[in-house]
Amino acid sequence: MRTAEPASPQPRPLGARQTKGEETRAAILDAALRHASTHGYEALTIGVLAEKMGMSKSGLFAHFGSKEDLQIATLDEAARRYTAVGFIPALAAPRGLKRVRALFTLWLEWTERSELAACPIMAASAEYSHRPGPMRDTVEEHVRRLHLEIMKAVEMAVATGELAPDTQPDQVAFEAFGIIASCYQARYLFHDPRANARALNAFERLVASHQVPPTR
Amino acid sequence: MRTAEPASPQPRPLGARQTKGEETRAAILDAALRHASTHGYEALTIGVLAEKMGMSKSGLFAHFGSKEDLQIATLDEAARRYTAVGFIPALAAPRGLKRVRALFTLWLEWTERSELAACPIMAASAEYSHRPGPMRDTVEEHVRRLHLEIMKAVEMAVATGELAPDTQPDQVAFEAFGIIASCYQARYLFHDPRANARALNAFERLVASHQVPPTR
Repeated sequence: MRTAEPASPQPRPLGARQTKGEETRAAILDAALRHASTHGYEALTIGVLAEKMGMSKSGLFAHFGSKEDLQIATLDEAARRYTAVGFIPALAAPRGLKRVRALFTLWLEWTERSELAACPIMAASAEYSHRPGPMRDTVEEHVRRLHLEIMKAVEMAVATGELAPDTQPDQVAFEAFGIIASCYQARYLFHDPRANARALNAFERLVASHQVPPTR
Repeated sequence: MRTAEPASPQPRPLGARQTKGEETRAAILDAALRHASTHGYEALTIGVLAEKMGMSKSGLFAHFGSKEDLQIATLDEAARRYTAVGFIPALAAPRGLKRVRALFTLWLEWTERSELAACPIMAASAEYSHRPGPMRDTVEEHVRRLHLEIMKAVEMAVATGELAPDTQPDQVAFEAFGIIASCYQARYLFHDPRANARALNAFERLVASHQVPPTR
């Protein structure tokens, strides 16, 4: 049974509807991000997400056309949050060693600040390094960008004279990444309460070894 | 149709049959190891392995009772190979810095020496850190053992006087792991031809910073 005619419908508030849709999309991405951080992105199916959200699969499909679109949007959301929480605030520190240090400490803390149980970007790197395709391309792009930003900050610390002129920014970025990776292993595999302290020690040693003029 | 009776069967050569069984098991584990290194251990189903081996699922079940048994046996096989290729040969180096260096360089090279496209232990660590259960326990045990062996080698290098007395072996192991992790990312995500060179640079800097007497 259906009513003969809709009773003089109000014009749809288009702006408001869009906001509601954006809200739903954001809520789906938040759930997806939490799930992918610890379970990986292959476990991120439209079905699993629909159940988590109490939505129909078709409702979810309206926001993300395919599993791959959902995976990529989730990874992009991870990068967006890292940028907001870990990168932008570091730019408030003055150029030079202070900014390098701010970048590192915020990187170390960003998952906690984002209330994530693990790093969704590192998870994607582990899962897709050996699988060519859009997910691999996306994670490579995000990680490369972070490497470049660290290199840029290190270059500025060389320019301010705080780091030695022969400092190799790409080597520092390589080592900084390793410290973060080891910190994650200490945190998540060993449940080591000193994981962050070890990472900060390692970082200060890394910086100190570039402050000392090289002996040749 | 079946023959009425087997024609005077030879007594089964039990020893040979066992060897054949062991060979099959080893071949399955080899295929499993290659698959898990790049695709992860959840992708390691009895079905996938049976297809790879051209065996029936029940034939595979005769060797590994369950998917989990197969996963654990594969991870144990990874640790066994690492020990054979990366650890035992390092013990030929004299105690002290030479052994620390041998441990590190063989660690860096072990996947290549084992003809593996990636590290199956690091893969397990990424996949199971957040999933309590036997796989998580197994990978934690293997990684802890490696950390302890590195710490022991560092302690001996302190005892020989090659490293400074205030060297913290657990911190060195933490940082060495990070260098390896960053090397894997450079190799597999960035296809960086200088990945190993960067790792060796980082390791030499790590060693050098512990050879210098601390300034207090």
